[in-house]
Amino acid sequence: MSTNQYTLDLDRAHVFHSWSAQGSLAPLVIAGGSGTEVWDDDGTRYLDFSSQLVNVNIGHAHPKVVAAIQEQAAVLPTVAPAHANRVRGEAAARILAKAGPAFGKVFFTNGGADANENAIRMARLTTGRDKILSTYRSYHGNTGAAIVATGDWRRVPNEYARGHAHFFGPFPYRSEFWSETPEQEGERALHHLERVIVSEGAASIAALLLEGIPGTAGVIMPPPGWYAGVRALCDKYGILLIVDEVMSGFGRTGDWFAWQNPEINPERVVPDLVTFAKGVNSGYVPVGGVIISESIAAQFDDQVFPGGLTYSGHPLAAASIVASIDAMEEEGIVEHAAELGREVLGPGLHALAEQHPMIGEVRGIGVFWALDLVTDRETREPVGAATIGALKKELLARGYLPFAADNRLHVVPPCTVTAEECLRALAILDEAFTALDH
Amino acid sequence: MSTNQYTLDLDRAHVFHSWSAQGSLAPLVIAGGSGTEVWDDDGTRYLDFSSQLVNVNIGHAHPKVVAAIQEQAAVLPTVAPAHANRVRGEAAARILAKAGPAFGKVFFTNGGADANENAIRMARLTTGRDKILSTYRSYHGNTGAAIVATGDWRRVPNEYARGHAHFFGPFPYRSEFWSETPEQEGERALHHLERVIVSEGAASIAALLLEGIPGTAGVIMPPPGWYAGVRALCDKYGILLIVDEVMSGFGRTGDWFAWQNPEINPERVVPDLVTFAKGVNSGYVPVGGVIISESIAAQFDDQVFPGGLTYSGHPLAAASIVASIDAMEEEGIVEHAAELGREVLGPGLHALAEQHPMIGEVRGIGVFWALDLVTDRETREPVGAATIGALKKELLARGYLPFAADNRLHVVPPCTVTAEECLRALAILDEAFTALDH
Repeated sequence: MSTNQYTLDLDRAHVFHSWSAQGSLAPLVIAGGSGTEVWDDDGTRYLDFSSQLVNVNIGHAHPKVVAAIQEQAAVLPTVAPAHANRVRGEAAARILAKAGPAFGKVFFTNGGADANENAIRMARLTTGRDKILSTYRSYHGNTGAAIVATGDWRRVPNEYARGHAHFFGPFPYRSEFWSETPEQEGERALHHLERVIVSEGAASIAALLLEGIPGTAGVIMPPPGWYAGVRALCDKYGILLIVDEVMSGFGRTGDWFAWQNPEINPERVVPDLVTFAKGVNSGYVPVGGVIISESIAAQFDDQVFPGGLTYSGHPLAAASIVASIDAMEEEGIVEHAAELGREVLGPGLHALAEQHPMIGEVRGIGVFWALDLVTDRETREPVGAATIGALKKELLARGYLPFAADNRLHVVPPCTVTAEECLRALAILDEAFTALDH
Repeated sequence: MSTNQYTLDLDRAHVFHSWSAQGSLAPLVIAGGSGTEVWDDDGTRYLDFSSQLVNVNIGHAHPKVVAAIQEQAAVLPTVAPAHANRVRGEAAARILAKAGPAFGKVFFTNGGADANENAIRMARLTTGRDKILSTYRSYHGNTGAAIVATGDWRRVPNEYARGHAHFFGPFPYRSEFWSETPEQEGERALHHLERVIVSEGAASIAALLLEGIPGTAGVIMPPPGWYAGVRALCDKYGILLIVDEVMSGFGRTGDWFAWQNPEINPERVVPDLVTFAKGVNSGYVPVGGVIISESIAAQFDDQVFPGGLTYSGHPLAAASIVASIDAMEEEGIVEHAAELGREVLGPGLHALAEQHPMIGEVRGIGVFWALDLVTDRETREPVGAATIGALKKELLARGYLPFAADNRLHVVPPCTVTAEECLRALAILDEAFTALDH
């Protein structure tokens, strides 16, 4: 019954889209999916190397997760957060087992944005300080006003949105610090961060909020010493460390969390609060949350936590989390992502860069990669929107669903992608770049 | 296998709860539900006169909505918001059909808080003004900082959380205006609102944000003339009117939206933006959204809307919306809620008030009622937390799951509640108040 035209007409007539002017949109139709593949209403199939918004870590319509949702829906689709529910407790236990013994409790939210909101709230209440530092190259979510619009008592402890300051994080390929090596970039970025802390007033800073690996900003791998240096600065100045693992968590880097990955954080320093969403259940049901250290969780044994939401600990989401983490373990999906990055995707993308001078840098790990596209390898001048548009068109025409941001192509398939699918995708990328070269 | 003790132990060990100090919580276990009933892991059953957080409008585990979730989960559990998907378009079309011809598009969010966030954003961008007015007695959600923590360009058009001002809305039973009749309360509240608008500076005010009926604040029925007067003030000063129908929408008042209910808004004035969540799909899958007027939607044909979220227009949520609205129509659930309020619940609660002097006022409509409990009918002194605690205990012991807020008992069953269940609940309420009288 359904055709692309029917779906498109419905969409253009009634649906308001994110981050866009609405007048000129031509969205791709997606009707169904399985594993790495999706298809439209007319039956055209695509290799999903976007994981949608880098969230479908377990692939599309994984049968174990689908079954868990179907079963829970029939038993109890929803329950208020004040009550206790078995599957919610089991989901929290699963997440805490992956985070490790430093962590005590999980607070569930609807997604990554409100996970960060609540982590910030916990940090402010725990430290009695206001400011949150985060990097210019970061994305932490889209909310920012509703609690201040709230009139009753719940507004009063939450009247912020003052109190945010930004700094430059390390980015060896596009340094803000005139550095010439990753080591130098790490040192200078830490120096800059400490200068910002001191200049903002260390005693005013509640938390430092960092993505596990800056994702939308370009899969920016932290240089050596960055994590350990950040942790040391936080400890020196009594600042809490919040790591936003919304995009980088649950297999994306080939580890459960980016901060646990030995290539990213060899010293294995531990954050105080970790936020998650996306990969925790591949977004099959909207959910996010905060993993809370033992000591911060204990802080709220007597002190009221002034935050909450109707769908906190939603049983359908919880069931999908339990099934997704169990399936990832049983099927070795996280280890698979690590190996694939090391053996196939990483080498393949580097080989591609040797063929195509437009690829200025290949960055990434696991199934989390970005190609930084340039007009000139010397100047590293980013390609323009027209080039990215043309590249997307070439890729879609060959059945490759891309994820592009600014001057970059992010290569971010599900963690379950097969080596054969990666090779097929690499061949398509080669063809598309070749077409662009001409 | 599961018992209450097992579930409670899991919960207390791992789950961080909303709006609470964590140390002394003793949550009720809820394992399953059907219609108005829920049960725990030991098989004890309760009549759910809370609708959880006033969201299970269609009752627990409605078979048509459950089936829609199960079917969609197998086809495509999630899809990125940039793409087009049939069931998302159909959900938007269903909602717009209920909202009426003044509205053009739906922007989907994860819940009510981010619906209000985005409505505020639209109002600010449309008017070029900053301030949002809302009442002291209101609740609009819990987010408020993540976008200001965001470092990239998406932060820049969203650096608010300044720009909120509050005023007193009308409340005949507890007037802030020394009024003696609802008519006088309405007139004086409008006068006060206009004085606040002028004193804040009308040209600085983007929107007035009001709940359809203030819900958590006590199901405060608007006095005659309130809606029409508010609309007239908005028009006079170029202010947009956002109505938050998160709790009051989709059947709760016996109409699709509170602002469409002839007892609440007899002049049928129309808001510019309407936010929703909860009843739209009874919270079976986390979802919310903004219903956007034709003219505001058109504003963003050429102008980029700087807001978005990963799970916007989630297909599992969309499928549950389509099934829920269709079932509500096919089964006459909204009309049923209206009739039950008029014939059974309203008269029953008023009769209860005649027996129990603690009930200072009965307020409400449809399946949306509050009992304002007082120590003295003359002074209207609210009862304390100990009385509310004792009342909840009496009700739970009799198999009635209550919703209490401050000094009030909110009587808010699903819209599908039967007359027999209402009579059973009324008898339990009578017994519980009698026990408290002694």
